[in-house]
Amino acid sequence: MIDPVHLLSVAREEAELGKAEGGVPIGAALFDTDGVLLGRGHNRRVQDGDPSMHAETSAFRNAGRRPHYRDTIMVTTLSPCWYCSGLVRQFGIGRVIIGEAATFEGGHGWLEENGVEITLLDDPACTALMTEFIRDHPELWFEDIGVPTER
Amino acid sequence: MIDPVHLLSVAREEAELGKAEGGVPIGAALFDTDGVLLGRGHNRRVQDGDPSMHAETSAFRNAGRRPHYRDTIMVTTLSPCWYCSGLVRQFGIGRVIIGEAATFEGGHGWLEENGVEITLLDDPACTALMTEFIRDHPELWFEDIGVPTER
Repeated sequence: MIDPVHLLSVAREEAELGKAEGGVPIGAALFDTDGVLLGRGHNRRVQDGDPSMHAETSAFRNAGRRPHYRDTIMVTTLSPCWYCSGLVRQFGIGRVIIGEAATFEGGHGWLEENGVEITLLDDPACTALMTEFIRDHPELWFEDIGVPTER
Repeated sequence: MIDPVHLLSVAREEAELGKAEGGVPIGAALFDTDGVLLGRGHNRRVQDGDPSMHAETSAFRNAGRRPHYRDTIMVTTLSPCWYCSGLVRQFGIGRVIIGEAATFEGGHGWLEENGVEITLLDDPACTALMTEFIRDHPELWFEDIGVPTER
């Protein structure tokens, strides 16, 4: 049986790792539909100077090559941005479990319209992580989502 | 002045590199609106065992961190899949120059609806690269776009 709260705890551990490294505190993990972990990762923009490594993409990368991803579940601490929502749609990932969408709402509504099962947990710990980060590092946050800021 | 055909030639060189390495022959490059190259790359699924490195994502990665990407042009040999279309939308990339959309049509129509300038070149060399690849390596191609195949 899949316990969304347990799966989210793995993604949240990744977000906490990212925070401890001075990075954007967003974490993700890819599981199969039996709940077996395939890959986990976190945002690595700061750590690797790599703007392409959003949390979901990082977890997907760490899961590695598979014939397809139809039987997988993406778990993420934050509503997936368009980039990572596009990943879910392109690779046919069937379900997305989301920690919170209060601090940022990406494309999860679009995914739901396109047949992806969405579970939004409204997790206070995930919301607190992002609220604190956006307050303390607004320029880094807006860089991470491609939004120009006044200097 | 931007010459789309010249910019495409850089992406096509990347696709040819990918082909020579035994990889999926799709290339991309990110330029600024003055035509200055910011980053170039190609699909690295086979080379790195990395399903997240589609050509556009690879070029974006190699361009590195920027405050924002509003003043950039993504050039790709093939219509961007949903994953890479999501990248363009999320990071506010203003223009996409595409080699061909005959062998695969991703999200470029969706990008156009969302205000991205699309230039589709119908380049015969790009079409030939993909036609040959899909003919010779169908399982690798369908794996790359997340489509299950019968074994």
